[in-house]
Amino acid sequence: MRVVCSLCGKIYYENPKMVVGCLVEHNNKVLLCKRKIQPSYGLWTLPAGYLEIGESAAEGATRETLEEACAEAEVLSPFAQLDIPRIGQSYIIFRAKLKEPQFSPGPESLECALYSLDEIPFDSLAFSSIYVTLKMYIEDVKAGAFKFHYCTINKRPGSSPSDPGGFVLDHHLHS
Amino acid sequence: MRVVCSLCGKIYYENPKMVVGCLVEHNNKVLLCKRKIQPSYGLWTLPAGYLEIGESAAEGATRETLEEACAEAEVLSPFAQLDIPRIGQSYIIFRAKLKEPQFSPGPESLECALYSLDEIPFDSLAFSSIYVTLKMYIEDVKAGAFKFHYCTINKRPGSSPSDPGGFVLDHHLHS
Repeated sequence: MRVVCSLCGKIYYENPKMVVGCLVEHNNKVLLCKRKIQPSYGLWTLPAGYLEIGESAAEGATRETLEEACAEAEVLSPFAQLDIPRIGQSYIIFRAKLKEPQFSPGPESLECALYSLDEIPFDSLAFSSIYVTLKMYIEDVKAGAFKFHYCTINKRPGSSPSDPGGFVLDHHLHS
Repeated sequence: MRVVCSLCGKIYYENPKMVVGCLVEHNNKVLLCKRKIQPSYGLWTLPAGYLEIGESAAEGATRETLEEACAEAEVLSPFAQLDIPRIGQSYIIFRAKLKEPQFSPGPESLECALYSLDEIPFDSLAFSSIYVTLKMYIEDVKAGAFKFHYCTINKRPGSSPSDPGGFVLDHHLHS
């Protein structure tokens, strides 16, 4: 996609952005953060954010976990890639564990908490990507084996980032 | 990373770019393309290129295969993510098959060919990411099972894109 500098008209090329995050496991629970910023203020998410130049996706995912949950995470394995073509984002999620059993809300979080899989607040999740990731994770835990999942989230026009009915899941493949 | 418009000074943010491609299998061979463009003119690669806004990684990978090898590919499964932090790239590679047994060089390729795994020209590959991908693929074929691979390629400063000794492979994880 070509974007034009809004001040002077020079052309730049814009590409999809990678959003990297950790699904942190601890004592059969997962670490969620309640957002203190828009969009989806007050809703729950996995620690995740934009990958930056100069870091790997795994480094970015643990950096975001430190920033949003003040938690030191160690990446265990790649878990999922979820593309959202309509908004030019691609989520890259790793399974991870806590190096120390410590966490607390960072400046962009109201609260951080460990949730057992049958208590995850699926009606209060911040993003469709997080909804899909946690559903796939629960299926893998029940099946007793983790796969790597690739899928495309096709958002319905006008749907909110957090609407669980606002998208269609396409092209779900796995390793 | 902040970049400043070279004409007017306005600040933009630059993020790592995703390079999406297909490892196309056909009759126990893989499809390679000899590059007609720089960098790495005349060296062999998998069909791959920058993901664009509005398409999924799987769609981008099959588009690149059509553009570079005039081949209609069907994605089978996610195979690898290879981050190259030094140059702000992340390769996303899918296993794929030919819908029809037809291919020919597109405008950016000198030649396209199917190579059996013991004939792959490892001394004439275009990029370290392609070298690593094909090595991991051969290992999985020998083991009789495909994993999803995540790794970081740390380039040595000053090494060329195609130098097989110009990088260190870090953080190799798999599903």
